[in-house]
Amino acid sequence: MIDALRRLSLNQKTTNSLTLPEAVDVCRRAQLESIGVWREAVADFGLERSARLLRDAGLRVSSLCRGGFLTALDPDEAGAAFADNVSAIREAAELGAQCLVMVVGGLPPGSKDLSGARRRVSDAIDALAPVAAEYGVRLALEPMHPIFTADRGVLATLAQTLDIAERYPAEQVGVAVDTFHVWWDPSLEAQIARARGRIFCFQICDWITPLPPDALLSRGMVGDGHIDVRRIFDLVCQAGYDGDVEVEIFNADVWAANADAVVATMKARYRECVVEASVCASS
Amino acid sequence: MIDALRRLSLNQKTTNSLTLPEAVDVCRRAQLESIGVWREAVADFGLERSARLLRDAGLRVSSLCRGGFLTALDPDEAGAAFADNVSAIREAAELGAQCLVMVVGGLPPGSKDLSGARRRVSDAIDALAPVAAEYGVRLALEPMHPIFTADRGVLATLAQTLDIAERYPAEQVGVAVDTFHVWWDPSLEAQIARARGRIFCFQICDWITPLPPDALLSRGMVGDGHIDVRRIFDLVCQAGYDGDVEVEIFNADVWAANADAVVATMKARYRECVVEASVCASS
Repeated sequence: MIDALRRLSLNQKTTNSLTLPEAVDVCRRAQLESIGVWREAVADFGLERSARLLRDAGLRVSSLCRGGFLTALDPDEAGAAFADNVSAIREAAELGAQCLVMVVGGLPPGSKDLSGARRRVSDAIDALAPVAAEYGVRLALEPMHPIFTADRGVLATLAQTLDIAERYPAEQVGVAVDTFHVWWDPSLEAQIARARGRIFCFQICDWITPLPPDALLSRGMVGDGHIDVRRIFDLVCQAGYDGDVEVEIFNADVWAANADAVVATMKARYRECVVEASVCASS
Repeated sequence: MIDALRRLSLNQKTTNSLTLPEAVDVCRRAQLESIGVWREAVADFGLERSARLLRDAGLRVSSLCRGGFLTALDPDEAGAAFADNVSAIREAAELGAQCLVMVVGGLPPGSKDLSGARRRVSDAIDALAPVAAEYGVRLALEPMHPIFTADRGVLATLAQTLDIAERYPAEQVGVAVDTFHVWWDPSLEAQIARARGRIFCFQICDWITPLPPDALLSRGMVGDGHIDVRRIFDLVCQAGYDGDVEVEIFNADVWAANADAVVATMKARYRECVVEASVCASS
């Protein structure tokens, strides 16, 4: 039980208004051992200072969010995206992040060519994988809920994402499994089992109804919605994942609340809805 | 070209505020040959009167919407759902509808057991298929976009839906393919090909961004969004489907507009975004 509780990680996005030092303080007060950080917050505080801050606080960096946005048609934009992802890889290395989460991007403006966008993602990973390998950074491709296929991520299923990841060594390219994005998938059990050795990041939050008006801010606190988070936790653990469990919640109400209170709820829900009665939590 | 244009059908939901006779008048003024009708509108006007009205107007009934909601845990509720679906089957027979569209239902209140809900759908189809066969009515199971898995339809992919349909003769149980629900699916091409002989209903509308605040009313006019509707039309035709093409749009702005104007736009967009340059439209 203790072990599972020690794997809980605060993804910075859950306390969206906080600076990196403020988020680190919240983690310390809540006795969390791990944090998932965002590039914007790291840039605001400075890369080297951020790395030192996180090291001094004794926090694991469960992920750096995020690279990606690889679907541009315009060659200049595609080149800029490549350069930005190389920067993200360097930052992940400097921070000692367990992976770089890749949100691959949606359809370019005006384009309806979904297959083409997916091909460009695949080609871009071809170009980035060797760079990541050179820096010892693992790329975690994130399949996104089909609510985001048009505008955030054209990889819609774990199966499709693994089809790309499996072209590379298992220590280089894998997947980020977020309960919000994958819970509905009829082939979830089989695909999580298939992902053994390639699950680099596991994020949890809930699907709530009615869906909040802004689709980008529609995620709920674990336990508030319809997802059997514990079952997915168990599937991921049974597939050999023993890393951190990030809570990542995009939600206007959560963002407006007191950060310490949010993290206290997050801890309580993780214990109650995930760890307790889990078949894997003590392993 | 003419043939494809003659296949256009107005799903009543696109002109949501109209009674059945009003919707029939709109079809007549727009020279449409087909309509998809809703049970509520038929009940309001009376079943026999509705059947006569549609027959006298010379309209094909491309579908009756909708049966389903088969996921209840409570035995009384499940029994009531069965009885209601038997009524829907009788109505479809009386109306001469080309199929009964089945929206299978979401998770029961408080339940997170998605696998269980899916099993109950499968069991309910087992019970309903013989009834439908007796009445000569085809059941069109509708896979729904994962945005609706929690609260409308636990069948999330065409593959999963075909796994159920294929247990029955191809003239009894098939699928409804709605571009809104399936466009994001990485296995769409293969699954539409697999559906040959079982596509009982084809519905079109678009995925627009930003997604409107009410998820249930988030569908756009064909051509206003990100879906390559023509490509899906071609895939469906290449799989042997030569039936009607229903335009079904749940959208508050569309519902607030003048119905004749909406249908005029719908016709123009169907020609422009679907039929023109289609590889199948003249077949």
